[in-house]
Amino acid sequence: MAVEQVLHMNGGEGDTSYANNSTFQRMVMLTAKHIVEDSIMRLYCANIPNCLIVADLGCSSGPNALLVATNIINTIDALSQTMSHEPPVFQFFLNDLFGNDFNTTFKSLPDFHRRLQQDKGNKFGPCFFSGTPGSFYGRLFPNNSIHFFHSSFSLHWLSKTPDVLQDTEKPLNKGAIYLTRTSPPEVHKAYFAQFQHDFTLFLKSRSCELLSGGAMVLTLIGRDELNELINAWVVIGMALNDMAAEELIEQTKLDSFNIPSYCPTSNEIRQVIEEEGSFHVQRLETIRTDWIKNIDVSDDYSLNNVDGIEDTRAEAVAKYIRAVAEPILKSEFGEIIMDELFIRFKNKIVQLYGVEKLELANLVMHITKRT
Amino acid sequence: MAVEQVLHMNGGEGDTSYANNSTFQRMVMLTAKHIVEDSIMRLYCANIPNCLIVADLGCSSGPNALLVATNIINTIDALSQTMSHEPPVFQFFLNDLFGNDFNTTFKSLPDFHRRLQQDKGNKFGPCFFSGTPGSFYGRLFPNNSIHFFHSSFSLHWLSKTPDVLQDTEKPLNKGAIYLTRTSPPEVHKAYFAQFQHDFTLFLKSRSCELLSGGAMVLTLIGRDELNELINAWVVIGMALNDMAAEELIEQTKLDSFNIPSYCPTSNEIRQVIEEEGSFHVQRLETIRTDWIKNIDVSDDYSLNNVDGIEDTRAEAVAKYIRAVAEPILKSEFGEIIMDELFIRFKNKIVQLYGVEKLELANLVMHITKRT
Repeated sequence: MAVEQVLHMNGGEGDTSYANNSTFQRMVMLTAKHIVEDSIMRLYCANIPNCLIVADLGCSSGPNALLVATNIINTIDALSQTMSHEPPVFQFFLNDLFGNDFNTTFKSLPDFHRRLQQDKGNKFGPCFFSGTPGSFYGRLFPNNSIHFFHSSFSLHWLSKTPDVLQDTEKPLNKGAIYLTRTSPPEVHKAYFAQFQHDFTLFLKSRSCELLSGGAMVLTLIGRDELNELINAWVVIGMALNDMAAEELIEQTKLDSFNIPSYCPTSNEIRQVIEEEGSFHVQRLETIRTDWIKNIDVSDDYSLNNVDGIEDTRAEAVAKYIRAVAEPILKSEFGEIIMDELFIRFKNKIVQLYGVEKLELANLVMHITKRT
Repeated sequence: MAVEQVLHMNGGEGDTSYANNSTFQRMVMLTAKHIVEDSIMRLYCANIPNCLIVADLGCSSGPNALLVATNIINTIDALSQTMSHEPPVFQFFLNDLFGNDFNTTFKSLPDFHRRLQQDKGNKFGPCFFSGTPGSFYGRLFPNNSIHFFHSSFSLHWLSKTPDVLQDTEKPLNKGAIYLTRTSPPEVHKAYFAQFQHDFTLFLKSRSCELLSGGAMVLTLIGRDELNELINAWVVIGMALNDMAAEELIEQTKLDSFNIPSYCPTSNEIRQVIEEEGSFHVQRLETIRTDWIKNIDVSDDYSLNNVDGIEDTRAEAVAKYIRAVAEPILKSEFGEIIMDELFIRFKNKIVQLYGVEKLELANLVMHITKRT
């Protein structure tokens, strides 16, 4: 599967769009905020550039696409004031795959600039934005041209599903679309090999593009060592398996389909970084989040503890997951089954909640380019 | 009128899209091709940068958006071979207003890269693309960050309609939407003052952004000194005037509406460049083109001489002009009259052809940053 062609969040600004269904990703970004702040302050103080050049990789579209920029601007603005220093000029590059909806983000920029002007006044320097389409598993920028890379919720996407997992003759991962507790060891091996290949390419590319003294903060969905946490792909797999049993989708199609996504453990991440050799790990943390409780059911965050799970919440979860998962599932199983699939997904959530650990292990790392 | 909000070509890839109706602009770009080639060769030989950074301002969307990049890559590639020199890395920035359809252009990049790879093979270095939304009548890039600016068919758009031409109480330019032969001198004065203001801001911004030794090639629709050529805005004005007489649109609305576009003479251009002072004029040429004959009526160019004008050609002209003019006219007069307006426009073309000079004076200039 050519991931570059089918992987994108739901575009536009409608009810099922990623733009309107991404407060969970926002919440994770906020959880990692202190690490971004800390690393950008260190980088700024060590280099004091006139123009700070930042690229956000896998920015997607909608409000989250500008969240990192806001965070970095606020941090450096406050720091400049403390240091009685002119704030730098900012240049932000927003990256995502060629099929991403950049138009929606670009249209929101005039408002963004207006708010910046209101908040910071005229003392604040210009802030330039560009969108850079392309896969981050390859080069995106010229050599030595970026100070700081950020990526949130993107690096668990692989460049493709491992070849051996697409074999229709000898399907390795029957009845599932991702690594589950019952998947044979070959499935894990194949997924990890692909991750190793892709993440190595990512690190090599970024190390060429980073200026000396440059750094990255990367957040991705990881896995605990015991593989006891259940993510959305596992639950979607269960729903698809039921649908195959009822002959609503073809069993052979399900058996040979696997999501091009891998959630590594923190040890696996560390191993790949060390083997590649261009970066120092300054910090690597795992932040566990309940992906049911932390879904926003209204306009404000509802983080209150609930024992069971009400229907509204399960529905909200289904909608949020659909914004991310629909394009890729649609390309494989057809648009016609999408409504049914996400109703079943919702029901699975209600069944599993409180019984299984519906949690994510978010890996957040701050790594710096070796000199 | 906030031009930034309403000015964009028809988006997408449909029948009325700019992407499918822009071969005329392409033809003008090809007419100016030798000037782009000459200037980029001079710039490259004088600087020999490892990475050549180019920005195309007002790129719009569709096939034309990548035409300049192709042209520049081919020129420098051939030059490098002659010089037995490694070709440089290229970084292209595609700029247009926030509402431009960047998505369509970005989606065409994988094919573009594939063709480049086929044509040039592995010897050819990487070529990076970014989209930079925003008005070029202001800053778009950090200081000293671009080698070469290109702009084709964009700088005749003003940042806004001059204030005095929007006066509903005392409309200066009754029954027309642009400068015509019968417009009073105040109309010309107001239009030129706005152009002076905008183009000065453009030059100031670009001179900050250009690296030392940097250059620009700009093509825009100009005017001959005698104002004897008739452009599409004048003809649309005639059609709207007829519609106002038949009460299909409000006369007062027409009287106070003027297109935020000005076509300067080459002397006016030279005057503004000299007054602003950052640039040397290396070359300034006027290329007259018949905007009826040079419209593409089939897939290939039909530049054969015709005495009259057949209906197909007039229809093709109406479609091409509509792709550019519709968004801004729609925002003023409503979508409902658009079909009728462009039927009348087509009929006007048939009447005027052979009687009036339906020609454009394209101004092409090569200007370099003063040291």
